[in-house]
Amino acid sequence: MIPAGCPSAGSAHPLGLHAAHRYGCQVGVTRRAVLARAGLSAGALALGGSVRAVAAETSRIPYHGRYQGGVTTPQQARLLFQTFDATARSPHELRALLRAWTDAARVMCDGEPLAGSASRNRAPADTGEALGLAASRLTVTFGFGPSLFDGRYGVRARRPEALIDLPAFRGDRLDPVRCGGDLAVQVCADDPQVALHAVRNLARIARHLGAARPRWSQAGFAKTPGSSTADETGRNLLGFKDGTNNLSTADTGKMDGNVWVGDEDGPAWMRDGSYLVVRRVRARIERWDESDLDEQEDVFGRRKLSGAPFGGTSEFDPVDPAKLPRNAHIALANPRRAGSEAERILRRGYNYADGLLPDGHLDAGLFFAAFQRDPRRQFVPIQRRLAAHDRLNEYIVHTGSAIFAVPPGVRRGGYVGETLFAA
Amino acid sequence: MIPAGCPSAGSAHPLGLHAAHRYGCQVGVTRRAVLARAGLSAGALALGGSVRAVAAETSRIPYHGRYQGGVTTPQQARLLFQTFDATARSPHELRALLRAWTDAARVMCDGEPLAGSASRNRAPADTGEALGLAASRLTVTFGFGPSLFDGRYGVRARRPEALIDLPAFRGDRLDPVRCGGDLAVQVCADDPQVALHAVRNLARIARHLGAARPRWSQAGFAKTPGSSTADETGRNLLGFKDGTNNLSTADTGKMDGNVWVGDEDGPAWMRDGSYLVVRRVRARIERWDESDLDEQEDVFGRRKLSGAPFGGTSEFDPVDPAKLPRNAHIALANPRRAGSEAERILRRGYNYADGLLPDGHLDAGLFFAAFQRDPRRQFVPIQRRLAAHDRLNEYIVHTGSAIFAVPPGVRRGGYVGETLFAA
Repeated sequence: MIPAGCPSAGSAHPLGLHAAHRYGCQVGVTRRAVLARAGLSAGALALGGSVRAVAAETSRIPYHGRYQGGVTTPQQARLLFQTFDATARSPHELRALLRAWTDAARVMCDGEPLAGSASRNRAPADTGEALGLAASRLTVTFGFGPSLFDGRYGVRARRPEALIDLPAFRGDRLDPVRCGGDLAVQVCADDPQVALHAVRNLARIARHLGAARPRWSQAGFAKTPGSSTADETGRNLLGFKDGTNNLSTADTGKMDGNVWVGDEDGPAWMRDGSYLVVRRVRARIERWDESDLDEQEDVFGRRKLSGAPFGGTSEFDPVDPAKLPRNAHIALANPRRAGSEAERILRRGYNYADGLLPDGHLDAGLFFAAFQRDPRRQFVPIQRRLAAHDRLNEYIVHTGSAIFAVPPGVRRGGYVGETLFAA
Repeated sequence: MIPAGCPSAGSAHPLGLHAAHRYGCQVGVTRRAVLARAGLSAGALALGGSVRAVAAETSRIPYHGRYQGGVTTPQQARLLFQTFDATARSPHELRALLRAWTDAARVMCDGEPLAGSASRNRAPADTGEALGLAASRLTVTFGFGPSLFDGRYGVRARRPEALIDLPAFRGDRLDPVRCGGDLAVQVCADDPQVALHAVRNLARIARHLGAARPRWSQAGFAKTPGSSTADETGRNLLGFKDGTNNLSTADTGKMDGNVWVGDEDGPAWMRDGSYLVVRRVRARIERWDESDLDEQEDVFGRRKLSGAPFGGTSEFDPVDPAKLPRNAHIALANPRRAGSEAERILRRGYNYADGLLPDGHLDAGLFFAAFQRDPRRQFVPIQRRLAAHDRLNEYIVHTGSAIFAVPPGVRRGGYVGETLFAA
């Protein structure tokens, strides 16, 4: 917090340690401090307890932990996903990037601005657009793509077998500029400006280090706090509730069984990690919107308003595969037969809307994202079935695809991926 | 509200009058009703008073009024702006579109799904993705571009003189696919899914009528409720507070003087309307982020953290032009000399982030939007000064541009633009 009357509050640069020291102020001007001041009238600089500061703190998700955040974290309202091509010239430079990213992620998840060697004639360490904003439940989740293990960084032998190159699926129309990446960061927050700030500053750090270059990005949106009840299932852009039968993150047995990499899975460096598959699934919105309600419900195997499965009367009624239309989406996604439980994935996708295509149609749909313990026996068999038979295929097209190993969480003083490079 | 036990709540199509009638239910299943049900356990269909329903109602901004909403309405968190090329073959067809758009806007601003001639073997009247969501302070603001007055629709003589073709400004790098439009709709809401739903359904109506085709669209974001204090000035993506000296919408004198078209302005059909200028202003984010703090503050003429003008100590201190750096942005935007007050515009822009450019840089910046009484003596002279001298020009580039006449608000039973076609 800045002491009352500290000139840095009014006119000096607060974003770096040096600048704060320069004015004899306490170091570490924080977004919370700015928030606290925000309730004061112009010119008044006295600080005190503040409801906003409290609100800001309750919206913080600590960065450190056994697992990375953003996997079992309750879904935030906004996503900004970005991948990078690694340009580091050595394992050492790559580790330096991961250390710097870790430090920045920790600070940003705490709702603080980045601090660095700033002075008035240097660029600010933090880009500033999140000053005054709460932490907004920011999570920053890093992943490593298969191409990171190509030999440049001395980890070829440590590539997990589960980190496969995804096979081609029937009907794929993948755009190469929306696929792959050596590195990925999934940034989620309730405020899009907080999410953008995080990605922008991570990209800036990578640029400064010459260690990685942005490859592609995808923004998305899920339920907005206050717009519906917290426990109501959100709807996708086809108008159906989406996620009714998703794994419960509160079910630690399922998380251990289906999401987190266990001891027996190997490699050891991935213990407590997971595998993330993302697919950009464009919906043929205009075609869908002209299909009749019978057709729409047959496609999913659920009722549009209630979300009830065919044969049921409300959303969470058990699904009876025998009652479902042939090749209905939910019948193929989860056939509910021997082995189906082990296949289930933790979906954490976001709706997206990227404006108009040249033909005036919406470029909108679902940015599918799913965490799992082993894509070879989870995403791949599911998607093979869907690609071959899903009635929904008439209305969607997969335009982007990537897979990442999501390493375990970071201990204090450590860095993301440390287990890989220390292995 | 659906009576308890009405089968349409569980399994039937609720989106149209016919379907509801078919089950003997009260017509008009509403997003509020769905919200009310959302708090109930699966299978329970009884309805009662609901906190969610109340919350939903408080987030409604009635569509009808003397002025269109979305001008002096307190800014919502999200924008989706879309323009259209008119394809109607006659004034009659165009009026039919405006009537249908008006009806849909009214219903959606009330937080209701669109109703129509729906049955199970017809496409639902409402696309459904906003079911269960609050009205989210949705506003739908329609505008007419200069090209609508080209003679196709019998209103050439009624084109307002103030609805100029914007001149070229120095430094413009306008992309034709982000410019112009016969018709525009500015949709604002606190929930991006509610905004998308509105635009999508308006576009669908236009498609059904064969009356208009989407031309370009732009999404944007402003302050997220709960992420900062309501009265704190939001920051643009350059990290500066943006809007400190904006007109106050509570100042009815200024609204009458600078925003709303008055009796003396002509044409009569625009009385209580306004003129909207939009500019897509891409920021050269990466260049800006490497500029030092002195440079950044000199560019704006304000301090980055506090927002105080040079020579002041806090954000709302009066601006002293003599203290500002030469050609600072705020000095040129508002020179604070004779005539400056009459020039001032009501800005209602949104930050935008549209992913990555081919070079890996952010395609992000400000979607500038400003309402005014006469662009000839407001936006144009301001932008001429900025284009010629603004220090900010090194860091921004205008990539899209359009101007629209925003007709007055709609009386009950009327339609938007009625004063134009009845003139």
